[in-house]
Amino acid sequence: MLMAELSRRSGVPVATIKYYLREGLLPAGQATSATRADYGEHHLRRLRLIRALLEVGEVPLAEIGRILAAVDDESASLHEVLGAVQYALGPHLAPPTSEDPYWQSASGEVDRLITDLGWSVAADAPARTLLTGTVAALRRTGSAPAGAGLRRYAEALRALADLEVASLDAAAAQGAGDGQDRPSRASYGASAVVGIVLYERVIIALRRMAQEDASAQRFSGG
Amino acid sequence: MLMAELSRRSGVPVATIKYYLREGLLPAGQATSATRADYGEHHLRRLRLIRALLEVGEVPLAEIGRILAAVDDESASLHEVLGAVQYALGPHLAPPTSEDPYWQSASGEVDRLITDLGWSVAADAPARTLLTGTVAALRRTGSAPAGAGLRRYAEALRALADLEVASLDAAAAQGAGDGQDRPSRASYGASAVVGIVLYERVIIALRRMAQEDASAQRFSGG
Repeated sequence: MLMAELSRRSGVPVATIKYYLREGLLPAGQATSATRADYGEHHLRRLRLIRALLEVGEVPLAEIGRILAAVDDESASLHEVLGAVQYALGPHLAPPTSEDPYWQSASGEVDRLITDLGWSVAADAPARTLLTGTVAALRRTGSAPAGAGLRRYAEALRALADLEVASLDAAAAQGAGDGQDRPSRASYGASAVVGIVLYERVIIALRRMAQEDASAQRFSGG
Repeated sequence: MLMAELSRRSGVPVATIKYYLREGLLPAGQATSATRADYGEHHLRRLRLIRALLEVGEVPLAEIGRILAAVDDESASLHEVLGAVQYALGPHLAPPTSEDPYWQSASGEVDRLITDLGWSVAADAPARTLLTGTVAALRRTGSAPAGAGLRRYAEALRALADLEVASLDAAAAQGAGDGQDRPSRASYGASAVVGIVLYERVIIALRRMAQEDASAQRFSGG
């Protein structure tokens, strides 16, 4: 299809598509003349992925570039792609510069939790730092979670992660219907990115609604 | 305590404390002379709450002001406080301006889900719009979640929300130890804010670690 049709079908303005092409977020089309190029379904899918990350995931464009580079790197394993996405997403909470007893205690608690769960999590995973900083803040504000409470959260979320990783296989197998013999690493990668970023939004939205309902039942008019 | 001690114990610089006082985020201390004021434990707690929302929750200062105003409004029920916090947090996803079949279909799906679950969720709850936009983006990128999948997420998160709302009662009862006869609305409110904002971070962090582990088991080296 021509640029105009790509714009119409994706809902992305031509000027924006040209910007993505210049920035390398979208691969060039097949040149058909000096001024025209032909774009395929994979361009449309890529544009929809960019818009989903930008508008729903609220991921900054610079991070999207880093995420797509990881998706496009065929030499990276899917596990490495997932890692790259998580690192690009942040949030990059910095450990305190001076000694902080809350942080140290939280750090020990998080280490023990991950050991107890038997999870394989990199020592420098941003999520580990995020959990440490959050537990420290909970303690500092006098709302320390019980260790058992954290574990219950961890187990519920692990069940959902298993569901997602399994559906990643299913999504990739569906992607294989695009005239390919087997799911490509690229279709796996794109599904993984969608899974990580958009399902996080699904979780946040459902959790807030669950909270609204739970609170209505317990506190309304109270 | 004097301003200097409040600064030392909270780790917040004096200039920043003065800024919070001017902006009304922190109530004034008890004046002891023309230039000195005495601050209590509740000032320290409020400072820790502000820093937790700002640094861990990444909530903008303007939104923090709105959240604290809701916490301080003794005429509001705890359910109203929770609602105010959720509205202040956003994200404020706007419905599309032109007709979008993905959005319309997602909107119907979200409505049915909430009805099936029997949840009480306001029609204009930002979380409802967030879920609609996310489901629309999932469909648009060809990663439509099965309705059953969404429901499984919803049920897992509802179990966690019940846990949190129950622990809110416990936290408020603890707060009652501060020389008060019964838990004050303010201590309830502050715990609720911490619960909503910081536990969301706990969930995001644990989910990403669960995903890292699930992915390591399934895809590593693949």
